[in-house]
Amino acid sequence: MKIQKDWISGFVDGEGCFYVGINPNKAVTLQVQVLPEFVVVQHQRDIKVLYGLKEFFQCGYVKRNHGDRMCYVVRNLSHLCNIIIPFFEKHALITTKKYNFLRFRWIVQSMVHKKYHLTSSGLEKIISVKNRMNRAGNTANAIR
Amino acid sequence: MKIQKDWISGFVDGEGCFYVGINPNKAVTLQVQVLPEFVVVQHQRDIKVLYGLKEFFQCGYVKRNHGDRMCYVVRNLSHLCNIIIPFFEKHALITTKKYNFLRFRWIVQSMVHKKYHLTSSGLEKIISVKNRMNRAGNTANAIR
Repeated sequence: MKIQKDWISGFVDGEGCFYVGINPNKAVTLQVQVLPEFVVVQHQRDIKVLYGLKEFFQCGYVKRNHGDRMCYVVRNLSHLCNIIIPFFEKHALITTKKYNFLRFRWIVQSMVHKKYHLTSSGLEKIISVKNRMNRAGNTANAIR
Repeated sequence: MKIQKDWISGFVDGEGCFYVGINPNKAVTLQVQVLPEFVVVQHQRDIKVLYGLKEFFQCGYVKRNHGDRMCYVVRNLSHLCNIIIPFFEKHALITTKKYNFLRFRWIVQSMVHKKYHLTSSGLEKIISVKNRMNRAGNTANAIR
């Protein structure tokens, strides 16, 4: 499947999600793990498109999301930093999802990549920004 | 707002809908009206994107869908035949929504545009094809 770059931006503007999971984990110092991920969910009848994204980005994986939904997921920090984020910097989103992307980028590049999520103050900042993501009042104000 | 053509295909692959309404209407001979429409629904925070589509296609209109959802709609038969359908022929959808598009195109171009929807047999064919649109079992089989 040949996918055009701008097609991906349009599809992700509709169907993609830049998500930051904040999960309890007793094995890490602050007992909380920060898990940024880029996800695209589709009905299983469109699994070919998810594999098309995997092939295009040359990273991530396809798995069952729930029920008849499949998803393409990128969680690897290096792939997020070097492949996914640069792609959406070049082929920009145009819906208000772009503000989520900017928050996501800040958390990934300026915090997790620099290991600030392992400090209490860093984690606090991340949680504060994460709480403004993927919400109805998604705006340009206060990206971080 | 500058919108790329492939972005539109990607966005419509996710968010667009090619729909054929079959509505009771006592004013027409067969008492049933066939209303094909191309629709893109978005939360009102992304109304700018809907106006961007209107500007791009130079047809259709933006209106409230329900609650906090707005939509971009093209219903005019000439605009569907001469603008919307040719666009998606050139900038093809790649999800299984393309099969809906092909059914929609057949209903618009081969039936409604030629006024076959005003005959009982034409209307019957249209209803049969319409009933296979926008369904979970969306496949290439039996486009018409």
